[in-house]
Amino acid sequence: MTSPADTTDTATFTAVPVPHTDEELAGITYNADGLVGAIIQDATDGTVLMFAWMNAESLARTLETGRTWFWSRSRQEYWCKGETSGDRQYVRGVRYDCDGDALLITVDQEGAGACHTGNRSCFYRAFGDGAVDDGPPAGP
Amino acid sequence: MTSPADTTDTATFTAVPVPHTDEELAGITYNADGLVGAIIQDATDGTVLMFAWMNAESLARTLETGRTWFWSRSRQEYWCKGETSGDRQYVRGVRYDCDGDALLITVDQEGAGACHTGNRSCFYRAFGDGAVDDGPPAGP
Repeated sequence: MTSPADTTDTATFTAVPVPHTDEELAGITYNADGLVGAIIQDATDGTVLMFAWMNAESLARTLETGRTWFWSRSRQEYWCKGETSGDRQYVRGVRYDCDGDALLITVDQEGAGACHTGNRSCFYRAFGDGAVDDGPPAGP
Repeated sequence: MTSPADTTDTATFTAVPVPHTDEELAGITYNADGLVGAIIQDATDGTVLMFAWMNAESLARTLETGRTWFWSRSRQEYWCKGETSGDRQYVRGVRYDCDGDALLITVDQEGAGACHTGNRSCFYRAFGDGAVDDGPPAGP
């Protein structure tokens, strides 16, 4: 059910499907569990927000919907980032590395951030600081 | 053996060990193969350069030497990035995520870049572009 509040919540960014070819999809290599790691990076300031896993179906959903879809290894189910928390990710680009076994997805991050702890980035801790700090570096 | 040329090659950046505690090390979770994924990001402009795997020993070497050490799954051996190519990585920070099962390492990248193809970043291809482009976005 859509309420006026829901409309306001989703008005910040627009989901845009990512063009892709079968040849590009065939270039992705999945591990023995059928998964590929996905690095999620803020499209605006370069902050690395999180790391999660995709299978072929969740990658296809991500490209087709313009929202990030992952595969939860613990729950054995698909999840669309932010559907529960409201902190949705709107995809701006999907890259893959030289081996085709890692993805780099740039997003507009809605809401408070990507981490379930309330931090903007899941990488809010560093060796040597012994405590929560200001998060990973963004661009200059 | 150290020659004057070697000295010049290594003069761009300085390797600095990363302070760390046993408690921080204990916070890292390794997968069934004893590995944790490491995202390598340029410390200056935020470009994501590569993704590779570390085990406990290569993470320890990375923290202690201030250079990136990985575990090659195909070769079953440790490798210190850039020892062959000259494109060394000097560690500026080592972060870990909320689950402790991914690392984010910021580096000063020496030489041409991180990728064996000659590209600065391993993520030089994107869905929808169908060709090599200018590489992933850095900060603004």
